[in-house]
Amino acid sequence: MASTSATDIPPEVQAVNIPDGTTDFIPLRGKKYDLKKPHITELPITWSNWYKHVNWLNTTFIIFVPLAGLISAYWVSLQTKTLIFSIVYYYFAGLGITAGYHRLWAHTSYKASLPLKIWLAAGGAAAVEGSARWWSRDHRAHHRYTDTDKDPYSVRKGLLYSHIGWMVMKQNPKRIGRTDITDLNEDPVVVFQHKHYIKCVITMALIVPTLICGLGWGDYAGGFIYGGILRIFFIQQATFCVNSLAHWLGDQPFDDRNSPRDHVITALVTLGEGYHNFHHEFPSDFRNAIEWWQYDPTKWCIWMWKQLGLAYDLKKFPHNEIEKGRLQQQQKKLDQKRATLDWGIPLENLPVVSWDDFVQESKNGKAWIAVAGVIHDVGKFIQDHPGGKALINSAIGKDATAIFNGGVYNHSNAAHNLLSTMRVGVIRGGCEVEIWKRAQAENKDIATVTD
Amino acid sequence: MASTSATDIPPEVQAVNIPDGTTDFIPLRGKKYDLKKPHITELPITWSNWYKHVNWLNTTFIIFVPLAGLISAYWVSLQTKTLIFSIVYYYFAGLGITAGYHRLWAHTSYKASLPLKIWLAAGGAAAVEGSARWWSRDHRAHHRYTDTDKDPYSVRKGLLYSHIGWMVMKQNPKRIGRTDITDLNEDPVVVFQHKHYIKCVITMALIVPTLICGLGWGDYAGGFIYGGILRIFFIQQATFCVNSLAHWLGDQPFDDRNSPRDHVITALVTLGEGYHNFHHEFPSDFRNAIEWWQYDPTKWCIWMWKQLGLAYDLKKFPHNEIEKGRLQQQQKKLDQKRATLDWGIPLENLPVVSWDDFVQESKNGKAWIAVAGVIHDVGKFIQDHPGGKALINSAIGKDATAIFNGGVYNHSNAAHNLLSTMRVGVIRGGCEVEIWKRAQAENKDIATVTD
Ligand code: HEM
Ligand code: HEM
Ligand SMILES: [Fe+2]
Ligand SMILES: [Fe+2]
Ligand SMILES: [Fe+2]
Ligand SMILES: [Fe+2]
Repeated sequence: MASTSATDIPPEVQAVNIPDGTTDFIPLRGKKYDLKKPHITELPITWSNWYKHVNWLNTTFIIFVPLAGLISAYWVSLQTKTLIFSIVYYYFAGLGITAGYHRLWAHTSYKASLPLKIWLAAGGAAAVEGSARWWSRDHRAHHRYTDTDKDPYSVRKGLLYSHIGWMVMKQNPKRIGRTDITDLNEDPVVVFQHKHYIKCVITMALIVPTLICGLGWGDYAGGFIYGGILRIFFIQQATFCVNSLAHWLGDQPFDDRNSPRDHVITALVTLGEGYHNFHHEFPSDFRNAIEWWQYDPTKWCIWMWKQLGLAYDLKKFPHNEIEKGRLQQQQKKLDQKRATLDWGIPLENLPVVSWDDFVQESKNGKAWIAVAGVIHDVGKFIQDHPGGKALINSAIGKDATAIFNGGVYNHSNAAHNLLSTMRVGVIRGGCEVEIWKRAQAENKDIATVTD
Repeated sequence: MASTSATDIPPEVQAVNIPDGTTDFIPLRGKKYDLKKPHITELPITWSNWYKHVNWLNTTFIIFVPLAGLISAYWVSLQTKTLIFSIVYYYFAGLGITAGYHRLWAHTSYKASLPLKIWLAAGGAAAVEGSARWWSRDHRAHHRYTDTDKDPYSVRKGLLYSHIGWMVMKQNPKRIGRTDITDLNEDPVVVFQHKHYIKCVITMALIVPTLICGLGWGDYAGGFIYGGILRIFFIQQATFCVNSLAHWLGDQPFDDRNSPRDHVITALVTLGEGYHNFHHEFPSDFRNAIEWWQYDPTKWCIWMWKQLGLAYDLKKFPHNEIEKGRLQQQQKKLDQKRATLDWGIPLENLPVVSWDDFVQESKNGKAWIAVAGVIHDVGKFIQDHPGGKALINSAIGKDATAIFNGGVYNHSNAAHNLLSTMRVGVIRGGCEVEIWKRAQAENKDIATVTD
């Protein structure tokens, strides 16, 4: 890993002092904040001001309306046709978020033709998670400032916060990291959807399902409650899991410095967005799951659209780069484990003994055996030697390098390790290569110390 | 790994030229071979001599008798009591082999009191797999010469050979590696069982089960066929799996230079002897499975006998040594994988460019960016940059070390890897430490080349 890490530079400086070409986010809905006055989030929550901390608009849409829908469902019976339609519409809206908002607009991981873009923007609106422009801006900040205070849905603030809290509670617009969305401002579909967001949402999320079920099989009420309100609720909770569950549950095969994790459960819930450690590492890859047997229906759809000529320029990180990342993370874990084990007295801390002294001491009763230039005291081990007492005794006071390494028996790696715990000295002269090779095998880092 | 491996020394020399204190095996049963005449196994198998290659005694016991038993079973109905007894007796005989022959006598992985020894020798006789002395001698040769020609049941000669072929076909006594069994020759139980082997077998394998079922519930025929012959057949086939399946199916977490493997299926079949990669690496450990949740009933029994005061001095390899072995094997696999990946042009093969030339070339249209002392040509990547075109363009002709490493964005490990594929030169002077650190992270072995 090359040197400087984010922590060396105070966060305030990171995005501000160095010009980064960012054009700031211009909110279209919501109140205009006076940036000079302290924002409500900068004041502590008290009994008298708590309701000012709540984002009532969001709370209405993600909590009150679904609750009302759940209660109404008691009086509206669910017809089979309406159920099937709601499930299909669920996938349409879900893919609007995953294939549209996320992989197309936030990450530009592929290019889409105009009809596909309109289709995805319509699906995204049906999911009621904000405009593609707003969503992508926040999401880019999430990637760029993952786990920091500038991350709009940092899991470091708690699982519930990353799932829903960041929407229910008001956010300080000064806090969210700035990101470059010039490309989105040039996309007519994104701009249209953003400008006419409320109209788009009401049409796609409520009117269309109501009309389809109503005109189709006369179930206006079911279309509104199940195809509209309750479907929205499920799709919201499922996609919110990418911000919560995907930063909390699973493995980190590519990098464990930040919170993103890979888990099949998250993938199942989120139309394939659950391989999130991979995704944060290779965000502009149109895939989240790279193995064919992993569940990533969003990837399958993009691939299918490509076959139909609707999508093109699908970006993939080279296999070699992905495997390099995986390998380095494995190496990191291995090095961490290596540091917890006892590798015997380091060779450079052993006394240097002349050959004659070694022979003399062995004659005086020490159970010393030389292997690869290192002297070992096998006294306590003779009794336990799996090859018998006679053999190991026969090597005392001798250089057993050849005998130990195949002459009589080609000892296992385990035997070599055990041998290193018996070190008492190094023989003067002549065997440096072997000593050095052993140091290499045991702890690769030693090379950086002794060379 | 310290240097010399068995393959450097021709096999003929290995056990012969270097005195190793071995007392040779003295066969008690079987014909006396004239070592000067060529042994039958040294002659090719032909239509006229094939029957001389077959070990008819063994073939009778492991093939013909079980076959006869299977056929007779057609006329002898299986009573519940006899079935239960046969299963219990199966475990008694099986443990005689695994806990007795194998872990106690072949590997001296614990010590047993006289009553336990007698019990185990009786169980071993009931399994009809030869005397403890003969079995241990072969088994020690198997460990010492694993996978070589001197291994009595080398899996390199085929799965069927290692399972049963080595017993059905005659063996050249000159071929099997010599091993030290002086300790067994001093054990009165082993010597007694060896001297009176045929009597022991007939008593324990046939008479005892026949009498128990006969005197117990009048089922003499069932006791003979099911408790005797068929039970022997099952126990033989199961324990033979240690020589075949355990060298063929599964993982190699500790060492992959030889054939032994770990697999739960083999463990289930062989009373816990299926963690065979571990076992060949740590043969004098009384455990074959080291995790509590792995299936090793032989280990559980030995542990229980210890609680009862029947067994003592249970040998365990230190946890640290076991984990060292595991780690080194993981490192080996990782290094093998590392070598298959492309790590970019090695730093030492890059041209050295002065800072002024770097700046000049960038002004002349090259999309060069310096990071950590290395010049990168990002020309083809600008379009794909996940952080946008503007940002990456702003760094052309500059030293982007700080910007890249957190100044603007703290790039992922993947980005660092990708960067290394874009190398075109090294900046003269001043940045050696960073270049060197990068080489370390990418390919630890490079340190041995450049230092
Ligand atoms: C110097 C310290 C020694 C240590 C720490 C040591 C360790 C071991 C260990 C752990 C084993 C178990 C099998 C394996 O891991 O490969 C073993 C087996 C063996 N050792 Fe050693 N050994 C030493 C010296 C010797 C010497 C000097 C000889 C021969 C002159 C020898 C001959 C054998 C043989 C023949 C076996 C095979 C036993 C079998 O598998 O049945 N060892 N030794
Ligand atoms: C010099 C060659 C460069 C390469 C190979 C490169 C590569 C990448 C890659 C692979 C990502 C995806 C996220 C990640 O892996 O961390 C990324 C994101 C990013 N890069 Fe670069 N980058 C380069 C230069 C720069 C420069 C010079 C800047 C700033 C001046 C910059 C700013 C960013 C930003 C802000 C992101 C975050 C985008 C987001 O997550 O939404 N990059 N870069
Ligand atoms: Fe994320
Ligand atoms: Fe993302
Ligand atoms: Fe084996
Ligand atoms: Fe063994």
